[in-house]
Amino acid sequence: MAEYIAPLREMQFVMQELAGLEQVAQLPGCEEATADLADAILDEASKFASNVLSPLNWSGDQEGAKWANNAVTMPAGFKSAYQQFAENGWTALACDPEFGGQGLPKILSTPVNEMWKSANMAFSLCPMLTQGAIEALLVAGSDELKQRYLPKMVSGEWTGTMNLTEPNAGSDLAAVRTRAEPQGDGTYKVFGQKIFITYGDHDMVSNTVHLVLARLPDAPEGVKGISLFVVPKFMVNADGSLGARNDAYCVSIEHKLGIHASPTAVMAFGDNGGAIGYLVGQENRGLEYMFIMMNAARFAVGMEGVALAERAYQRARDYAKERIQGTEVGVRGGPKVAIIKHPDVRRMLMSMRSQTEAMRALAYVVAAAMDAAKRHPDEAERAKNQAFADLMIPVVKGWSTEQSIEIASTGVQVHGGMGFIEETGAAQHLRDARITAIYEGTTAIQANDLIGRKMAREGGVTMKAVLGLMQQTLGKLAEAKGEQFAVIRARLAAGVAALTKASEYMVATYGSDIKAAHAGSVPFLKLTGIVAGGWQMARAALIAQAKIDGGDADPFYAAKVVTTRFYADHILTQADGLAESIVAGASGVMALGEDQF
Amino acid sequence: MAEYIAPLREMQFVMQELAGLEQVAQLPGCEEATADLADAILDEASKFASNVLSPLNWSGDQEGAKWANNAVTMPAGFKSAYQQFAENGWTALACDPEFGGQGLPKILSTPVNEMWKSANMAFSLCPMLTQGAIEALLVAGSDELKQRYLPKMVSGEWTGTMNLTEPNAGSDLAAVRTRAEPQGDGTYKVFGQKIFITYGDHDMVSNTVHLVLARLPDAPEGVKGISLFVVPKFMVNADGSLGARNDAYCVSIEHKLGIHASPTAVMAFGDNGGAIGYLVGQENRGLEYMFIMMNAARFAVGMEGVALAERAYQRARDYAKERIQGTEVGVRGGPKVAIIKHPDVRRMLMSMRSQTEAMRALAYVVAAAMDAAKRHPDEAERAKNQAFADLMIPVVKGWSTEQSIEIASTGVQVHGGMGFIEETGAAQHLRDARITAIYEGTTAIQANDLIGRKMAREGGVTMKAVLGLMQQTLGKLAEAKGEQFAVIRARLAAGVAALTKASEYMVATYGSDIKAAHAGSVPFLKLTGIVAGGWQMARAALIAQAKIDGGDADPFYAAKVVTTRFYADHILTQADGLAESIVAGASGVMALGEDQF
Repeated sequence: MAEYIAPLREMQFVMQELAGLEQVAQLPGCEEATADLADAILDEASKFASNVLSPLNWSGDQEGAKWANNAVTMPAGFKSAYQQFAENGWTALACDPEFGGQGLPKILSTPVNEMWKSANMAFSLCPMLTQGAIEALLVAGSDELKQRYLPKMVSGEWTGTMNLTEPNAGSDLAAVRTRAEPQGDGTYKVFGQKIFITYGDHDMVSNTVHLVLARLPDAPEGVKGISLFVVPKFMVNADGSLGARNDAYCVSIEHKLGIHASPTAVMAFGDNGGAIGYLVGQENRGLEYMFIMMNAARFAVGMEGVALAERAYQRARDYAKERIQGTEVGVRGGPKVAIIKHPDVRRMLMSMRSQTEAMRALAYVVAAAMDAAKRHPDEAERAKNQAFADLMIPVVKGWSTEQSIEIASTGVQVHGGMGFIEETGAAQHLRDARITAIYEGTTAIQANDLIGRKMAREGGVTMKAVLGLMQQTLGKLAEAKGEQFAVIRARLAAGVAALTKASEYMVATYGSDIKAAHAGSVPFLKLTGIVAGGWQMARAALIAQAKIDGGDADPFYAAKVVTTRFYADHILTQADGLAESIVAGASGVMALGEDQF
Repeated sequence: MAEYIAPLREMQFVMQELAGLEQVAQLPGCEEATADLADAILDEASKFASNVLSPLNWSGDQEGAKWANNAVTMPAGFKSAYQQFAENGWTALACDPEFGGQGLPKILSTPVNEMWKSANMAFSLCPMLTQGAIEALLVAGSDELKQRYLPKMVSGEWTGTMNLTEPNAGSDLAAVRTRAEPQGDGTYKVFGQKIFITYGDHDMVSNTVHLVLARLPDAPEGVKGISLFVVPKFMVNADGSLGARNDAYCVSIEHKLGIHASPTAVMAFGDNGGAIGYLVGQENRGLEYMFIMMNAARFAVGMEGVALAERAYQRARDYAKERIQGTEVGVRGGPKVAIIKHPDVRRMLMSMRSQTEAMRALAYVVAAAMDAAKRHPDEAERAKNQAFADLMIPVVKGWSTEQSIEIASTGVQVHGGMGFIEETGAAQHLRDARITAIYEGTTAIQANDLIGRKMAREGGVTMKAVLGLMQQTLGKLAEAKGEQFAVIRARLAAGVAALTKASEYMVATYGSDIKAAHAGSVPFLKLTGIVAGGWQMARAALIAQAKIDGGDADPFYAAKVVTTRFYADHILTQADGLAESIVAGASGVMALGEDQF
């Protein structure tokens, strides 16, 4: 089975020429992030992804994580791969240097993380969740908690989990019922059950650090009464050595559609007297700390969409080049040809590729904005970049993941009957992709965040500013020569007009008829993704054309103009219909009574 | 787990009021197909579907068909279910009365078959393939072959298979290499391997009748040298009793994404001296016979799309009504509500439902046309109906199956995290649906059939006639009162204009630039489905409104107008963008060199 090969040229282009690695490297604390270092890191990461993680992707899926006696055994090869992963320093890449991390900017860790996700998404969830737990402790943990837990989590010696969801609570964290009882000695006893806990238990490391949302006695009802606790699997002695087993057990794992190698645990805390926990930060502020980390987590899941789309594309492309079937259309009596010569196969590949490129372009640009938001010396610049990232993160998450499902499904289709056979590997990408639009907030949750918190709350100011940036790109397209750019400009202009119309509607309607706004929120998120992705593709095409005009013969640049043109004709053309559905389609959504369903 | 409930009211409406059961009952040989008989049959079938087939759907998926020692064991319950299915006469429903069938028209067997597919698609494939084999024998078999095989296939005592595909041949039947050697006694010995053989072996009946494509010695190369043979699993003696085991064995079954209970066999013919076979019809005309049956088979797979969409909708709807999560949007501090109150959940359900209704409406109308094409006393009427069915069958097949994947995926999304858990059952529908757009000709094959054989070859005459019928419906919409119909009319008018533009482009381009035509063929098929489905929904809404205006208080009619309005605002709005991609999007599809992938 073909292994993942990182699209290094494309990653370098997007990172350096489109998202502006050079500008990020000028930020305080990012001075090391030169193009040379970036190339070296991406090169090393690509080898690890291809040689170590990718070969375990399908075997891990088929074998799956196994549960017995309250413990999870990982599929063959995972433990060794994780140990190498940690030894090579990959867990520490983006972490705070104070605790052993390398402190690299988001624009550099993003392509590296994309590789892990492409090569083996089920594996990649373990470091991803650990990263989330690290950030929660950094945000709110006491110095003692940080010193005790962070160095070994950063080094990869221990892993971390996030325990939010409870049975029958789903996305509704107000319904959290897990409770924490103070023991008078600064510790708490935690009691309750959590579900959907990614890597809640496994055998790759010696300890797992659970971050658990729970209620203190007499805490207020709802989301304002939730606190955050550290509950280690094994107690940690003052000298850092491991102590007794804590009362936190994985009592079962889920039988899922995909990511079979990633154990999704039901965690029982306190069934045997109480799980010892430590309060993170202040009482009743747990949800607030979660929200601080949410941007990073949602961005990371959006990158899963990009990564799975890339992997599905690679597999479909390789198959289409190898598979000989039929003769070339219009060539009577010609020889049998590879199916990549068939126009519909080509259309499918171009659709997969152009959308993946657009999703990646938007995501890396957002990653660079997150770096600037965190580190730019100018406060106004920080705020501007934060606002842009805040607006676009639900789009990166919702749009990239929804499209990754469609793209992975198209990848199956390229394979014909072989796509339905599990051994081919194409079906796994579809199965794996399906969760990305659900966890870390469903697409509807992203969409409601986009139109509510990120737009209506501020009267659409940031969206207007982004639409202004898109107009600037349209101006540059008008100066570019040739039919390709004329078409790209016309299609993007129509898309920007559609997004402008829909944005104005959303901001106006959110206050007057919030149900109507919500009825169009997911189509609006998709529209925003399509147009923002098209905007970045247009920027990419302009950069590429400038290179070509300057005499650069790298065929990469010519291809970028072609994929942008395809995106314009086949993806941006969807914008107007979506805008129509949004601004005029609410009435039919809610018109039926519940008894009519 | 919720069992399938046939949507009887909807089926009756589409069958009787939209597709015209009454007109079909006036055709010679269809006199029995009264509304009363139809109601009685649908009622009985719905009970069998709900009580016998549906309960085996998930267990069959989880257990799967098992292979050992060249034989397949079906999941628990399947053998008994099949025997009841045959005893109750369901295998004989649409078959020729001469061989024990009930000879019911397509408009009546179609909803019945939809029920089997909804309730248990993996099960339904066995009678479907048997039906295909029966029709092949009816078309071309000698009287002796018919007498020997058909009665027991019609009664359900034996099942049938279709053996077309070979390793590395896929959809390219010109590449068939299986050979048949005449033995001088009227029999042949067949040697070769076939793959993807649905129900190639199983333990539900005593004998299986394989229809096998193979080449005679000295047959011409390519598709004109393929003959069709009957190869029984067990030889059949002159008295109808079973004789020796034939040399036709299932040597393995595939490990698939879905339809796990349907064994997909690798069949080895002649590994032990030769499988005895009998020529069906004339030498070298095998593919021709297959093509005669192809309409029926493709229509049947299109109905799988309708059926799985219905099942996915039912499961999502039931979950959305039961699952309590969050408060109603815009109601501060309100009680927790069922998620069906959330606008985006409602939008998803309406999207699933309105498209399923549109797909069903188009399919049943095509079924009625197939009845008229076969039985109308007037030759011109027969030809007109045949042309309509020929044009629309690739659309029913391609569009309904592609949408069923999207609809089943939306069904998963409605469930949130639970949708990713296999026990919920939503994921199975997505896994099962994925094959429908591939087998019996991929969507690209349907699309190329649509634009080539069904349109370009006749200069688009039938499509023009259908667009004329759509204009008639637009005229009636213009006479209807109220905002709902004004919107429906405007949206459908835009859709018809888009389809007209794209159709003219296709007919013109097919001759001048066939690659450009093929580059847009799948979007064109989708566009045709969207607009034809919208046309049928508009017809349905007009019929419903006439009932309402006539004082009929059945809430079904009011709901039909609402789903049509939703379809207009959310689905028909996609038409214009698709037409743009078709008429202006070809250049980007083929612009990259193969080495640029």
